[in-house]
Amino acid sequence: MSLEPSAVAGPLQGIIVVDLTRVLAGPYCTMVLADLGARVIKVEMPPDGDIARGVGPFINGSSAYFASLNRGKESLSLDLRESADRSLFEALLAEADILVENFRPGVMEKLGYGWESLHGRFPRLIYAAASGFGQTGPYSRRPAYDMVVQAMGGLMSITGHPGAPPTRVGSSVGDITAGLFTAIGINAALYHRAQTGEAMQIDVAMLDGQVAILENAIARYAATGQVPGPIGARHPSIAPFAAFATKDGHVVIAAAGEEHWAALANVLGRPELIDDPRFRTLTDRVANVDAMQVEMEASLVADTTANWLVRLEAARLPCGPINNVAQVLADPHVRARNMVVSIDDPTLGRLEMAGNPIKLSAFADPTTRGSVPPLDEGRARLMAELGLKVSGA
Amino acid sequence: MSLEPSAVAGPLQGIIVVDLTRVLAGPYCTMVLADLGARVIKVEMPPDGDIARGVGPFINGSSAYFASLNRGKESLSLDLRESADRSLFEALLAEADILVENFRPGVMEKLGYGWESLHGRFPRLIYAAASGFGQTGPYSRRPAYDMVVQAMGGLMSITGHPGAPPTRVGSSVGDITAGLFTAIGINAALYHRAQTGEAMQIDVAMLDGQVAILENAIARYAATGQVPGPIGARHPSIAPFAAFATKDGHVVIAAAGEEHWAALANVLGRPELIDDPRFRTLTDRVANVDAMQVEMEASLVADTTANWLVRLEAARLPCGPINNVAQVLADPHVRARNMVVSIDDPTLGRLEMAGNPIKLSAFADPTTRGSVPPLDEGRARLMAELGLKVSGA
Repeated sequence: MSLEPSAVAGPLQGIIVVDLTRVLAGPYCTMVLADLGARVIKVEMPPDGDIARGVGPFINGSSAYFASLNRGKESLSLDLRESADRSLFEALLAEADILVENFRPGVMEKLGYGWESLHGRFPRLIYAAASGFGQTGPYSRRPAYDMVVQAMGGLMSITGHPGAPPTRVGSSVGDITAGLFTAIGINAALYHRAQTGEAMQIDVAMLDGQVAILENAIARYAATGQVPGPIGARHPSIAPFAAFATKDGHVVIAAAGEEHWAALANVLGRPELIDDPRFRTLTDRVANVDAMQVEMEASLVADTTANWLVRLEAARLPCGPINNVAQVLADPHVRARNMVVSIDDPTLGRLEMAGNPIKLSAFADPTTRGSVPPLDEGRARLMAELGLKVSGA
Repeated sequence: MSLEPSAVAGPLQGIIVVDLTRVLAGPYCTMVLADLGARVIKVEMPPDGDIARGVGPFINGSSAYFASLNRGKESLSLDLRESADRSLFEALLAEADILVENFRPGVMEKLGYGWESLHGRFPRLIYAAASGFGQTGPYSRRPAYDMVVQAMGGLMSITGHPGAPPTRVGSSVGDITAGLFTAIGINAALYHRAQTGEAMQIDVAMLDGQVAILENAIARYAATGQVPGPIGARHPSIAPFAAFATKDGHVVIAAAGEEHWAALANVLGRPELIDDPRFRTLTDRVANVDAMQVEMEASLVADTTANWLVRLEAARLPCGPINNVAQVLADPHVRARNMVVSIDDPTLGRLEMAGNPIKLSAFADPTTRGSVPPLDEGRARLMAELGLKVSGA
């Protein structure tokens, strides 16, 4: 017997994911797969399941955080040290296309489910592991959380203001980028398997992902030997490209084009700045970026962010407000892009969360998502689909 | 005649990417595809090509920044308004699997290369567009840069310290996450095409990607109505999970587990903190996070970060240093994971850059990458492969 496809239409229609992941990096990855049409069966350890079920905020005792990462998945509670549960798990693997886990390296081998062993038994099963430090290397067995890899991976050293205490990126980009790289690897492995029949293991480390997104900081260091530091809301090699104070807050202006400077000076009512020798070229403006900011803000503080945005947009200057989360979720463009979707859950009620940023011409982009699986909700259904007898347990 | 596969082995072996992208989001996406074994033919506008070629730092006049995003790709300079160049471009498309572009929406339609038109002529061609605001919605035609979407998408509002001026994430996560989501969409579309023969368009907006990575900030707002703000290097709902001052800098401690608190108090030589009523449970510690930080730092400032890390690691506490970019690139684990690769380029010499975080059991992970394509270096080779006569141009 084989498992039914997901009810969500998408390019991964028919793909079955057995999902051992917890908290964030792994669940984010499998959420992306679910949004692409894969059926995701979340296998959780008794008695409590994914510890994210215990992370607030809560609504009627149910975690809104867990909901935002696991809506539309199915849940099966299995103790992989118990033989009956192992049999069920292996019956699932026999039907699955992908196994995803984000345990610390070594845990799956101890359970007898390391890659070599699984690959021998289930040769079409793609195996993806997302971990803090990866399956190899001297730190492999160390525990990691997002904060640790943001710090160790260099991102924290280039974020914030010079001389100020360290700051983390406000969302867990250490986990999330690892989840995205894992999702890329899984999809590429699915393509490879479709071409050749061969399955593979995917090993993604959160720390590696942080190194991979350091971007121009690495090029600057490699080319010049100078160690990049934090520079607030500025860009290291473009000016003006920063947040500027206005009468009632800040406005972001990202005038990367050489043609933008004259347009900006005119919007500010300061045409004399166009040919000011301190600011004439990009190189001049980067060299005199402090003076440039002082001159710009001398004009900008005379009016509100909203009024400046009208003028800046009319001049086709790349600009924007610094939106808080409430403003983001209310933004008409964000709404028009269907980037706020909702669930209608028996416990949580109607809850909004982020949508899927991968818009595909071949498939609809649903405005709602499936509800949140209570722990082990799928047991009877999955056993029936697998043709297994439901035991007294 | 068909184009040869890439020399890089990987799951996308045999895939041909025609790459119209510039600067960052698109080139980052196609770099990921190249690392997975796709052959990437970068089509650039004369006379200067990708403007990132003009972005520093430079080595012998060649951009190290451009190199870090475009190593191993091929270059063809085409003016898509000229008929001879259009013919060559269309001959390429006839052989290609994927077209990627990151123009502002509308540019491809003006050139006669919109999705509908291309899909009619090249039904197997997958078309991926990464843009600031996406192909639809009221802001669709507006210009955007990373700084703008970090601000408008909410990430800036939750990054940095309360009351301090705004800060940007130090790398361009607005571009990079859009590049990653685009790469996921492309790989999923390749899988779908392998199953059904059908190609599709992929539409990814940088702003949408920022909303998608806001993570628990959305859940907090949706569940409580409270608008999350910046909280420095802390986590909103876990404590201790922050950067703490030591004698010579900072140490990050991410003690998310309930069992970690006692272990940490002992490492600090402060067993009395274990049962201090202010800190007994996670809820207590989050409620009294300022007092907790004061108590912890009272001990931590007595010794160096390096010495504390030895003790914290011995107690299996998740912890780490705040590495700068030089320290990241020198880290033995980062090296062991092959996350620093190099090119040996005729102009740039030997240059280090970030490696590929997607490690695959079926393929080697090369320690080097191909050199940087000078503008239009591939013209004769590509025309020969396509069976076209090289004109006098």
